[in-house]
Amino acid sequence: MKKRLVIVGLGLMGGSMAIALKGFEDFEIVGVDVSQPTLRYAAEHGVGDWVTERAADVIPQADVVALALHPQGIIDFLTANRDQFKPGALVWDVCGVKSAILEAAQVLPETVDFIGCHPMAGTEFSGVEHAFGEMFQGSHFLMVPRPDSRPEHIALLERLAAYMGCKDVCRTTGEDHDALIAYTSQIMHIIAVAVCDDPDLFACRGFEGSSFRGCTRVAALDVGLWTQLFSLNRPALLAVLDRLLGNLQAYREVLAAGDRAALAEKLARSAARKRQMDLPGPDLLK
Amino acid sequence: MKKRLVIVGLGLMGGSMAIALKGFEDFEIVGVDVSQPTLRYAAEHGVGDWVTERAADVIPQADVVALALHPQGIIDFLTANRDQFKPGALVWDVCGVKSAILEAAQVLPETVDFIGCHPMAGTEFSGVEHAFGEMFQGSHFLMVPRPDSRPEHIALLERLAAYMGCKDVCRTTGEDHDALIAYTSQIMHIIAVAVCDDPDLFACRGFEGSSFRGCTRVAALDVGLWTQLFSLNRPALLAVLDRLLGNLQAYREVLAAGDRAALAEKLARSAARKRQMDLPGPDLLK
Repeated sequence: MKKRLVIVGLGLMGGSMAIALKGFEDFEIVGVDVSQPTLRYAAEHGVGDWVTERAADVIPQADVVALALHPQGIIDFLTANRDQFKPGALVWDVCGVKSAILEAAQVLPETVDFIGCHPMAGTEFSGVEHAFGEMFQGSHFLMVPRPDSRPEHIALLERLAAYMGCKDVCRTTGEDHDALIAYTSQIMHIIAVAVCDDPDLFACRGFEGSSFRGCTRVAALDVGLWTQLFSLNRPALLAVLDRLLGNLQAYREVLAAGDRAALAEKLARSAARKRQMDLPGPDLLK
Repeated sequence: MKKRLVIVGLGLMGGSMAIALKGFEDFEIVGVDVSQPTLRYAAEHGVGDWVTERAADVIPQADVVALALHPQGIIDFLTANRDQFKPGALVWDVCGVKSAILEAAQVLPETVDFIGCHPMAGTEFSGVEHAFGEMFQGSHFLMVPRPDSRPEHIALLERLAAYMGCKDVCRTTGEDHDALIAYTSQIMHIIAVAVCDDPDLFACRGFEGSSFRGCTRVAALDVGLWTQLFSLNRPALLAVLDRLLGNLQAYREVLAAGDRAALAEKLARSAARKRQMDLPGPDLLK
């Protein structure tokens, strides 16, 4: 008899996983969503082996449950379904913040193993109609096990990530993950929206250079999702925002002082850091 | 007899103009540079009709002089050559700041017409070996005439810009130009270098998402050039930097307060501004 892998939430991420994981070892892939149009689309396009709107019907028999909802949805689902999971089951999530999710997962009974995950893949679109199985090709799969996570579950997720096409699985802590994401992604979105708050925005339309477009590309963000991501990662995001404010303020001071030599020295240091960052390395050669 | 158009400085900008302007009306295009390798390359590759290292030999007979040096180089050249220009000549520059250049141009005698210009074109490379005549295709040509600039000179530059391939000529003031550039370009470079000053930069190598790459792409900048551009545009740049600091601080406050509804409302407003900015318009349809 086949094992059962349930994916809760068939958006871009869950839908793409449901496609990419078909045929994985001896698992049947079951998709769960509350939206009828999503379920219809998924059933018609082979997203997973079969789909249902009734989580309660499939969770108790699931060996593995992947939560691919919005961050707050994951937290709420864990609380509402804490007693529905099969003893010995592996539950994992795919959300872009980890400490808050791992904290929420403490409601689970001891018999249920939870591992926080973050496949670093996506597009600027959302919804099952944009899902595609190749989305994970070449991306990192970040994993935050708990101290008591079972080695066979960690090994299972490593095989699963490889099957989806991820290039590696990087184990980290919730704290380190959240600091990384705050710096490499979240603060970029804060910068982008803050730049668009400038009163001169519309006056410069048609005159934006490529640097302006590059910096503000992500400003038209999914408000519901990012409100949750920012809010659930508040300490790490505030820390990196304060460091950015300090670094901008340092440039402000040397500019205001009118000391060209000091400005040149400062720019040379920052530019050298960027050049060093971009040196070809294993991750940049592909 | 042909008229003479002298281009001082055969870097990426001056070199590309010297290529693009060949055959323009009844002008011969003369390139001036102090670097022997640059002159050799220009002569061998048809950059301009002919080149020389001796500005003093060609400036007094020039009907039009385009200054394509670094900003401080333009200022210094104007001062050093103030009495060398032919009475009735048109002198113009191509620099990314305008108020400081127009102020420097006040050293010129009344018989010499000066018009500040800024062809909004370029690449991430520099030097004559990267020059190409198509660089100006589809770009804006910003022009800041003085109150006493002669209409025939303005008309000449309009024809010249069209000949190079610019899509339009926009007349503006030094103040407006510098505010526009401070916001659409300069502050993006300040953000990029400030982000790279973060102590976590190297720790996140290989995990930067596309938003991080988009925001920091321009951080490995030409230190000498940008030190001059920032310094010569100090008031406008400080103004936009202070507005950015204020807008980031406003996000910091709503984040720190932990008020999700207020954060969502603020994000919705910024994202809507970005969407409105990107509505298809005349400049974005091409």
